[in-house]
Amino acid sequence: MLIQIINPNTSKEITQKLATLAEHTKSKQTKVIVRSPQHGPRSIECFVDEQIASASLLDLVIQGESENVDAHIVACFSDPALYAAREVSSAPVIGIAEASFKFASTISAKFGIVTMLTRAIPMIQGLLFKYGYEKYCTNVRSAEIPVLDLNNISNQDYQSLYQECGKSISQDGAEAIVLGCAGMSELAQELSQQLGVPVIDGVSAAIKHAESLVQLGLSTSKSGQFSTPLSKEFIGRYNHLSSS
Amino acid sequence: MLIQIINPNTSKEITQKLATLAEHTKSKQTKVIVRSPQHGPRSIECFVDEQIASASLLDLVIQGESENVDAHIVACFSDPALYAAREVSSAPVIGIAEASFKFASTISAKFGIVTMLTRAIPMIQGLLFKYGYEKYCTNVRSAEIPVLDLNNISNQDYQSLYQECGKSISQDGAEAIVLGCAGMSELAQELSQQLGVPVIDGVSAAIKHAESLVQLGLSTSKSGQFSTPLSKEFIGRYNHLSSS
Amino acid sequence: MLIQIINPNTSKEITQKLATLAEHTKSKQTKVIVRSPQHGPRSIECFVDEQIASASLLDLVIQGESENVDAHIVACFSDPALYAAREVSSAPVIGIAEASFKFASTISAKFGIVTMLTRAIPMIQGLLFKYGYEKYCTNVRSAEIPVLDLNNISNQDYQSLYQECGKSISQDGAEAIVLGCAGMSELAQELSQQLGVPVIDGVSAAIKHAESLVQLGLSTSKSGQFSTPLSKEFIGRYNHLSSS
Amino acid sequence: MLIQIINPNTSKEITQKLATLAEHTKSKQTKVIVRSPQHGPRSIECFVDEQIASASLLDLVIQGESENVDAHIVACFSDPALYAAREVSSAPVIGIAEASFKFASTISAKFGIVTMLTRAIPMIQGLLFKYGYEKYCTNVRSAEIPVLDLNNISNQDYQSLYQECGKSISQDGAEAIVLGCAGMSELAQELSQQLGVPVIDGVSAAIKHAESLVQLGLSTSKSGQFSTPLSKEFIGRYNHLSSS
Amino acid sequence: MLIQIINPNTSKEITQKLATLAEHTKSKQTKVIVRSPQHGPRSIECFVDEQIASASLLDLVIQGESENVDAHIVACFSDPALYAAREVSSAPVIGIAEASFKFASTISAKFGIVTMLTRAIPMIQGLLFKYGYEKYCTNVRSAEIPVLDLNNISNQDYQSLYQECGKSISQDGAEAIVLGCAGMSELAQELSQQLGVPVIDGVSAAIKHAESLVQLGLSTSKSGQFSTPLSKEFIGRYNHLSSS
Amino acid sequence: MLIQIINPNTSKEITQKLATLAEHTKSKQTKVIVRSPQHGPRSIECFVDEQIASASLLDLVIQGESENVDAHIVACFSDPALYAAREVSSAPVIGIAEASFKFASTISAKFGIVTMLTRAIPMIQGLLFKYGYEKYCTNVRSAEIPVLDLNNISNQDYQSLYQECGKSISQDGAEAIVLGCAGMSELAQELSQQLGVPVIDGVSAAIKHAESLVQLGLSTSKSGQFSTPLSKEFIGRYNHLSSS
Repeated sequence: MLIQIINPNTSKEITQKLATLAEHTKSKQTKVIVRSPQHGPRSIECFVDEQIASASLLDLVIQGESENVDAHIVACFSDPALYAAREVSSAPVIGIAEASFKFASTISAKFGIVTMLTRAIPMIQGLLFKYGYEKYCTNVRSAEIPVLDLNNISNQDYQSLYQECGKSISQDGAEAIVLGCAGMSELAQELSQQLGVPVIDGVSAAIKHAESLVQLGLSTSKSGQFSTPLSKEFIGRYNHLSSS
Repeated sequence: MLIQIINPNTSKEITQKLATLAEHTKSKQTKVIVRSPQHGPRSIECFVDEQIASASLLDLVIQGESENVDAHIVACFSDPALYAAREVSSAPVIGIAEASFKFASTISAKFGIVTMLTRAIPMIQGLLFKYGYEKYCTNVRSAEIPVLDLNNISNQDYQSLYQECGKSISQDGAEAIVLGCAGMSELAQELSQQLGVPVIDGVSAAIKHAESLVQLGLSTSKSGQFSTPLSKEFIGRYNHLSSS
Repeated sequence: MLIQIINPNTSKEITQKLATLAEHTKSKQTKVIVRSPQHGPRSIECFVDEQIASASLLDLVIQGESENVDAHIVACFSDPALYAAREVSSAPVIGIAEASFKFASTISAKFGIVTMLTRAIPMIQGLLFKYGYEKYCTNVRSAEIPVLDLNNISNQDYQSLYQECGKSISQDGAEAIVLGCAGMSELAQELSQQLGVPVIDGVSAAIKHAESLVQLGLSTSKSGQFSTPLSKEFIGRYNHLSSS
Repeated sequence: MLIQIINPNTSKEITQKLATLAEHTKSKQTKVIVRSPQHGPRSIECFVDEQIASASLLDLVIQGESENVDAHIVACFSDPALYAAREVSSAPVIGIAEASFKFASTISAKFGIVTMLTRAIPMIQGLLFKYGYEKYCTNVRSAEIPVLDLNNISNQDYQSLYQECGKSISQDGAEAIVLGCAGMSELAQELSQQLGVPVIDGVSAAIKHAESLVQLGLSTSKSGQFSTPLSKEFIGRYNHLSSS
Repeated sequence: MLIQIINPNTSKEITQKLATLAEHTKSKQTKVIVRSPQHGPRSIECFVDEQIASASLLDLVIQGESENVDAHIVACFSDPALYAAREVSSAPVIGIAEASFKFASTISAKFGIVTMLTRAIPMIQGLLFKYGYEKYCTNVRSAEIPVLDLNNISNQDYQSLYQECGKSISQDGAEAIVLGCAGMSELAQELSQQLGVPVIDGVSAAIKHAESLVQLGLSTSKSGQFSTPLSKEFIGRYNHLSSS
Repeated sequence: MLIQIINPNTSKEITQKLATLAEHTKSKQTKVIVRSPQHGPRSIECFVDEQIASASLLDLVIQGESENVDAHIVACFSDPALYAAREVSSAPVIGIAEASFKFASTISAKFGIVTMLTRAIPMIQGLLFKYGYEKYCTNVRSAEIPVLDLNNISNQDYQSLYQECGKSISQDGAEAIVLGCAGMSELAQELSQQLGVPVIDGVSAAIKHAESLVQLGLSTSKSGQFSTPLSKEFIGRYNHLSSS
């Protein structure tokens, strides 16, 4: 089984971190390719970043399809371009926010989300509503750490994160914590041990969810909303999409 | 890894069918125990059946815990006693309705559900609302087959089921089908081939979801709603629960 | 008119308290039988307790039907087994949470609920959503009193309860208080006088609602979800249900 | 106990019909006054009618308060001026739509509503949402009978009504029928016998609900939204309200 | 273009203030008539006031129609009688709460509302739900100023208002402020400059929205809920409506 | 006043049609610039098209800002990149779907939407939920016309459109029609005359809404979600965004 993990930002350090995490998380039989787009922002922290990354990552989905990957994972907690990616993919496409909500809600009745920046909170709240998980979530909190700091997380940043998780449990009533950024993934285990509740990393959840779907032979329905786009002309820097 | 699959009704034939399905679906490294309670109804078709089965299946969860199983699956599409089971379990407890919604919504934007009896429809609609999946579901349809007929499904029953699935796609706009009864599980693959859309069997989905959680070291949060019940006296036929 | 009041736990003291309350509340022409099951937990404080009590109380509903009672009241604030009870009953079956919401919303635009234990709060929130009363409720608070303490309430417990009611009014904006436990019923009047707002006891509300339905000749619809269960085999300790 | 039933339109025939119905429905110990305003429309069939009737009926609530009535019933299915009436009343004020939803939902999982005119349907749908009963209602249907025809209902009108009720059951899945107009009240029993499901008349339900509240000593909370209006000047035809 | 602005209370001072504001806000080509009813309360602060004002303002809508006004504005933040006014109008009828929500949500993702009295908060929350804007609003706050004080606002009142707006931004996360009372309209600009976020006055928004609709030739649909009322008899002080 | 209208697809014919429409709709004092991006798809008919157009149109918003336009309109009924555009804009940014819902809901209680392709329906339903207008919309229908056919609409296409509008009114109960595609804008008037109900074209509504906001001095709040993005590096084809 071959899974493509797409880091939708263009930070090589985060791509590298995802590769390390994936090697550790995946089943033996699974192979992973971890890639980031050739175009776009170094980090995704606002709606502009997300829109540009969305357009860029579609190239990687198309490339992965031509390489017959068995599943695609979009490894940014805003789940960028998820529906568009499913249109150009016959394999399943999994967002890490969606996957983490699905895992967290099986093992807790109420989970809290801790993300990097206050600015990302409304984006995440929008996903909770879109996916129907708003009743499961106690609150979305921010540790106020710039995303690129995650390339080399300081002790101070870790403490900020740990403290917001703690408030989520003691003040908001969270029974589990969802980490609201792909860059935090490697911290899940340590945080869980310190906090005494499950901590869900969306990248790991997405890898396992991808393996599950592939093992069951389940793939993106091409009937309805995710059916293949009609051919049409794209001009300028998107000319290469004209034949898709 | 050891997974306990609980058939909450007392029909040995369905328990046997689930065992066969599980052997086929599980990963090599996984072992499964498939059990049904010693007490309760032969099938679950109404609220009374569900309440009795709920009380009965808790004994199996407690037994599984004492045997250190790594996960429990409750294999009835009404997800009976799910929250109570999580109270007495340190391992994850997975309902097949919940699992099937989580898998179906990754590969389709709208799914339909086809169950056995009209009477089960409101129960399933209740679960869609409880879990937040009501916007994903086009409709819940019934093929009008008594649950126990599934022990030995006739060609006529298969045709009824096939036709309701077809209507779900063509009339309701379903892009994938969720089978709304554990007893239908073995038919998923054949139906999918005939219908041309993914067909999700909740038992298989639950097995894969259980394997995923165990592989990630994620288990029921014991902080909050699913914390262990306080000891108290139970009398009469539930005396054995007094020390739990 | 004969009304059966079912105390779903097996605490004789609470059953006795309910009998005293019922005698005081009922109309002259009404007779009441107050019973608790022969099997099950001494108190209902978590999902396990509720599931066991649900299975046990159905025996009493069936017994009451054979005695031609005119209505059944399920006197626990989690409204256990309400839908199943309606399946085996031709008489109306009334839950005390449902009844208290219906009465409170006629005399206030926003009511608060005060219950015994924090653990019970999510169960009650679930009922508010299920019944459509979530917009009416300001908050669910807990006085942190073990249910069985209610058999003989101390002054300290009363003060805790009184203070949570007060916070519900002054901090949350509640215009009336619903008592979230059958065991508190006898305190409603005293609390109302001290607090200066209406205090609704669900048991009293349910008795009056039962009398109303019977006087109007309205009873459980046997068309649809509450129609009589099909006969089937139950084994083991539920063998006696086989002929129902 | 003295209950005031307010017919908010100015049709004496309907007032008379309500008086007859009330005599038949009320408990022996209850006395009823049935009144209609001195000002306003002969029937309530649109938003203009409802607004005018709302302003008019408040005079009767104030009059009833001065006569120390124990409860007020507003006997029009649009529940006009319910919140304003509660401001000027220390006794409970009950709307017949609200009451009928509360009674119907105790004895059925899904009820249908049949009203007189298509034009009234959105008003009723608004009430279902406002009170939180939208999930309980299968559909609102209209029999297309002008309200004043109810003064002397023809066989043809009865047949129209009966047929819409039948469609509500067979096509929409209603398990009980709520009559969506005070003028239909006397037909409930006959319709129920013919249809084989419970038929709820809101006027009768409101009378019983009023008796229940009064017997329990529960009355409109004067803390919060329904507190007494501040004194202020009203000019012109509402000058008499200046001292309220 | 001729727009009628209806002040639904009978305070001449507020009517005068609205006239001044309208002259300043309207386009050159627009003419405005500002009127208040001959009957009703001096201010609208509770449900009784609103019901009486609703009945009174309909006379002005009818008068405006006979004068061929191009649009009507109902200038009270409870949007009284909006649906009834549309029934008797062929021109558009615009409520200031509705208009302010529509403008605020175009320029902010979350807005706060600051009104005069705590008592008005539930009325406004009801409108947010009715119009579908509850997700856009962070909170409704009150500055605790009696409506008629607005005739001649003191520095202290302005400071109270300013401080609640500030809390809405810093504590609730509001990105823009909606002024929840027609009497505050003239303060919008000054508040916006001091607060550094957009401040929306519903009267101005409604005037612009009215001009827009008229310029596009869009007017109240007379098909469906807002179709002209059937003729019927009104008695007493509403006799003049009999021919409408 | 200078308004930029962005046609997010790259079809020059549609850009030209929008220019003609805008000249006809705008106020005398308003100047408009109508532009389409240099990059991207010829039409927007699926999620891929929308994501690419979203990334492309941001360049035009940034360009317009540098030219000090007073407002931006995004003239595609999927409201692409609306939130991102607001981040890079100090002027208001208006989507045509959002604008059309705001205008339609002032003049009708229920509106229907008719769009070009079945495939666009879920996108529009998503917007209805996001903006809170789902209760106002009776149904979204499709006339099954490829978007680019609108460059030169045939009589047959017009008839298809007309018939779907008619069904929306007679079968779904729509009281007004919203045209669900910018390319249909010029047909609004003719359709309205034939159908006898208001027909809302989102482009015209957006132009008027833009003029209104500018006249009132209201602009995008730069506090909160729409605040200016932090500077960061963009690589590859988005390098030009690095300094934004």
